[in-house]
Amino acid sequence: MQLKQLLPILSWLPGYDKSNLRGDLSAGLTVGVMLIPQGMAYAMIAGMPPIYGLYAATIPIILYSMLGTSRQLAVGPVAMISLLTAAGVGAMAEAGSENYISLVITLALMVGVIQLLLGVFRLGFMVNFLSHPVISGFTSAAAIVIGLSQLKHLLGINMPKGEHLHEILHGAWQHIGETKLLTLGIGVGAIVLIQVVKKWKKSFPGSLLAVAAGILLVWGLGLHEQGVKIVGKVPGGLPALGLPRLDWATIQSLLPIAMAISLVAFMESIAVAKAMQSRHRNYKLDANQELIALGAANIGGAFLQSFPVTGGFSRTAVNDQAGARTGLAGIFSAALVIVTLLFLTPLFEFLPNAVLAAVIMVAVYGLIDYKEARHLWHSNRSDFTLWLITFVATLFIGIEQGIGLGVILSLALVIFRTTRPHIAVLGRVPDSDFYRNVERFSNLIQRPDILIVRFDAQLYFANVNHFKDSIDNLVSQKGEALRAIVLNAESINNLDSSGVHALEEVIEQYRRMNIAVYFVSVKGPVRDAMAKAHLTDKIGGGNFFMSNQQAVDAFDQKNTGNTEAFADYALQTNV
Amino acid sequence: MQLKQLLPILSWLPGYDKSNLRGDLSAGLTVGVMLIPQGMAYAMIAGMPPIYGLYAATIPIILYSMLGTSRQLAVGPVAMISLLTAAGVGAMAEAGSENYISLVITLALMVGVIQLLLGVFRLGFMVNFLSHPVISGFTSAAAIVIGLSQLKHLLGINMPKGEHLHEILHGAWQHIGETKLLTLGIGVGAIVLIQVVKKWKKSFPGSLLAVAAGILLVWGLGLHEQGVKIVGKVPGGLPALGLPRLDWATIQSLLPIAMAISLVAFMESIAVAKAMQSRHRNYKLDANQELIALGAANIGGAFLQSFPVTGGFSRTAVNDQAGARTGLAGIFSAALVIVTLLFLTPLFEFLPNAVLAAVIMVAVYGLIDYKEARHLWHSNRSDFTLWLITFVATLFIGIEQGIGLGVILSLALVIFRTTRPHIAVLGRVPDSDFYRNVERFSNLIQRPDILIVRFDAQLYFANVNHFKDSIDNLVSQKGEALRAIVLNAESINNLDSSGVHALEEVIEQYRRMNIAVYFVSVKGPVRDAMAKAHLTDKIGGGNFFMSNQQAVDAFDQKNTGNTEAFADYALQTNV
Repeated sequence: MQLKQLLPILSWLPGYDKSNLRGDLSAGLTVGVMLIPQGMAYAMIAGMPPIYGLYAATIPIILYSMLGTSRQLAVGPVAMISLLTAAGVGAMAEAGSENYISLVITLALMVGVIQLLLGVFRLGFMVNFLSHPVISGFTSAAAIVIGLSQLKHLLGINMPKGEHLHEILHGAWQHIGETKLLTLGIGVGAIVLIQVVKKWKKSFPGSLLAVAAGILLVWGLGLHEQGVKIVGKVPGGLPALGLPRLDWATIQSLLPIAMAISLVAFMESIAVAKAMQSRHRNYKLDANQELIALGAANIGGAFLQSFPVTGGFSRTAVNDQAGARTGLAGIFSAALVIVTLLFLTPLFEFLPNAVLAAVIMVAVYGLIDYKEARHLWHSNRSDFTLWLITFVATLFIGIEQGIGLGVILSLALVIFRTTRPHIAVLGRVPDSDFYRNVERFSNLIQRPDILIVRFDAQLYFANVNHFKDSIDNLVSQKGEALRAIVLNAESINNLDSSGVHALEEVIEQYRRMNIAVYFVSVKGPVRDAMAKAHLTDKIGGGNFFMSNQQAVDAFDQKNTGNTEAFADYALQTNV
Repeated sequence: MQLKQLLPILSWLPGYDKSNLRGDLSAGLTVGVMLIPQGMAYAMIAGMPPIYGLYAATIPIILYSMLGTSRQLAVGPVAMISLLTAAGVGAMAEAGSENYISLVITLALMVGVIQLLLGVFRLGFMVNFLSHPVISGFTSAAAIVIGLSQLKHLLGINMPKGEHLHEILHGAWQHIGETKLLTLGIGVGAIVLIQVVKKWKKSFPGSLLAVAAGILLVWGLGLHEQGVKIVGKVPGGLPALGLPRLDWATIQSLLPIAMAISLVAFMESIAVAKAMQSRHRNYKLDANQELIALGAANIGGAFLQSFPVTGGFSRTAVNDQAGARTGLAGIFSAALVIVTLLFLTPLFEFLPNAVLAAVIMVAVYGLIDYKEARHLWHSNRSDFTLWLITFVATLFIGIEQGIGLGVILSLALVIFRTTRPHIAVLGRVPDSDFYRNVERFSNLIQRPDILIVRFDAQLYFANVNHFKDSIDNLVSQKGEALRAIVLNAESINNLDSSGVHALEEVIEQYRRMNIAVYFVSVKGPVRDAMAKAHLTDKIGGGNFFMSNQQAVDAFDQKNTGNTEAFADYALQTNV
């Protein structure tokens, strides 16, 4: 049982249902065929030689298949993580150099270790702090940066490296006169081909067709002798086993980007894994085990020359559509890549870079989420603002800074909202016992001697002053006739010690003015906090009620009958 | 009108009621008499020569009287701000040196400018982020550090400077053998005298009596020739007008401590001002105008050699008890200090440092808030933990770090609490229409076909996954008979775009399973967010209800009658 939790493969492989084999095999091979051009293209984004994209599509996939809890997730190189890798390591070494390659492999190890630790310490919930607008704004901007960074290969020009939009556009503008028309023609042709194939049949690997056509064209017509840049000699064979470089200075300088990649990679992977799980519902997804599986994939990969990987959107969708039922599909994909590495690498010598650029541009174009931006503009301005700030910061300040700023601002907004919460004065709906906000419903009945107030937030240190000031203002608006304040606490979800102090002050202040204070619909956790701080005794058990109407009735009966009966039930608690 | 808001003195001085004069005069003179020993003592804490404590009790007080909105607040040197000053500037220059003095004066100017800007941009609400446990833990630790740092003067020994408890104790331990018994005797005598006078008559300035007795004793017996350290020659006359030193490097290095002092000083001042205002209630307190007034006091002070000041607890309490009715009391206090500076400074030459140390130790002892710690331990463990972390960090890591850590942790706790909020399954109270948490009340009635759930937090990006997982778990516990989910939204105070997505997913998922989803008690701001995102249309107007019972009734009538009548009112909004 314990072992099955650590190695989920043990829960599905021993009793493997042979009827799943057809689906797993066809899905695994389809994804494997996609992996070859995508892997090489994403290696290029990461600043690595293309062959490393194939290395990253071997052992990490196999490890995830054994440890992961998703049965459709396709792990491997993805565009966003490759871009983050290039952005982080690009500042420390020349892309493609030996030093650069060894730094990237160390980065993969660090990402793996961080993810493994997050999983072991059950910190998977941290991914929840990436809000939808932040993810969408960040992804859209990163897609634009990734796509435009490929102009270099699409136009066949020399562009200075840059990860900011203005640098990239400036670089492209300065060198646009050097555009090689033949290269551009091949690239545009590949884009058109992929798009047409996609229109015709969604599951067909158009990018592989474009790769094959590009290779044949260059090889057949000798276009590489006319200035078309090609991938060149690709070393054959499996990646060599090696120890990643580990020294303290390297680890320290890579740590910020490793943390960013760990979280972003997990976020992307868990989002798509959840989408798949909710389609199938025949297995459980465990976020912390997913972290452990991705961590193991990156750690294992780092010892076999892989760069950081994660579960990606597009290949997972294809994997699912093509019939993947278990992790065996992933093992078939990896097997296909291994066969390619062993026997087929000579084929890729004549592959034009412009075709890989086309593969990337088509893939990332779909990630630019202008629909979400438009939707937020109409439905939620503050979330739209978050989207826009994250988007603009990612484009012009930097990839990690964009996502960091987005997360901090979205959390600050959550805090800020609760500092000046919505406060409603309630009135009675005619001919009923319902009470509603007098500013939203017409014809509600209010009494001059009773003020019924609902405070719509937890009552805690950052809003106690606002709470007291608001009550004071409402009381002074109410005038001399006021004899009772009914505090409807149904939406006060928590009460800290500052909140207890504030309630004490309010009660003492108004009792001195001969105004009673009643409490309605106080929630369990808040009742507990009141009881522990002895506030319940100060308020008096008879001043708690289950509904606004009970409190009003009790006020009316105060001099005539006993109201304890109402209150007792409201206060009862078995904690 | 506009001018009266900028200069509140114009609203009370022109129509000054002469019956207030007696109270203002006696309060002003009493506070002035307190200011002389306290000012000198607090200057010593700040690492400044004692005379600067009198400078700080002149122009800043007058400026506050003109611009402040509190009528009892006594502004001037206070222990905590002096300690923060010493902690911040002590690292940059030798305490008491010319360089040190000029840095402290620049710091006062920066504190003033920051406070003025905060006030002008109406950012006074920022002080709300200092929670009660953080303030109490911080104040208690700072009081211990301040008090023990005076051991040097009380014992008459040389102690290395230190702002951490372990450094101070270690220093005292190493030099305790050098204790001058005569100095210690004078110090302990002063402490006893001040305490006895306080017991006898609270409003009598015992510290002034101790100062007078100390001076007479040293002068009369020539004790300064027997090793008792004295204040020494005090330059007479008013502080010279001068431009504070301003260069970019100085400003940059002082900025963090200036920001910390600005906020802590404002927090201390506004807390005591609010306490006074709530006793009198014959005037309004404006937090942003208070910031402007304190800012002006510090800026004006900086041009006349003052160190950072604010409104303090002890003198304000005396001011109020002695009858202060307007800002005129402050002007009388400042006048007394000015007279002292002009004519009485020679008197202080023989004042023993040990007496000033005694004044400080008695004053700060009252700030050690062990009662609050004990109260939190019993009433709220997470707030107690905050108190303790702030207390320990302030003692052993540093003054600013302690308060910074406290603020960050208390905000993180607020966020963290909402990520896994309380969720209640509701059941009906027998013989009523009330629904309560089934885990807290016994004998509640639940139906197998209806799940009623209340989610006790705003629904936003950081808890949407928890929300969906919780609903899924509750649904699968409920079993096959389930036909409807009633989401009681009375405590969902806000809904962001991630929340909207989550609700859409939940509704679609359960509709596919033929389980209806009803909404009860949806608040106005949440209804708005739903409407703007077109979620209201997807849910359908007929699925909103005013109470759990209405939703249950509607479910029962679904196949027999029309339930739109219930729902219409729940959805009505005039925004």
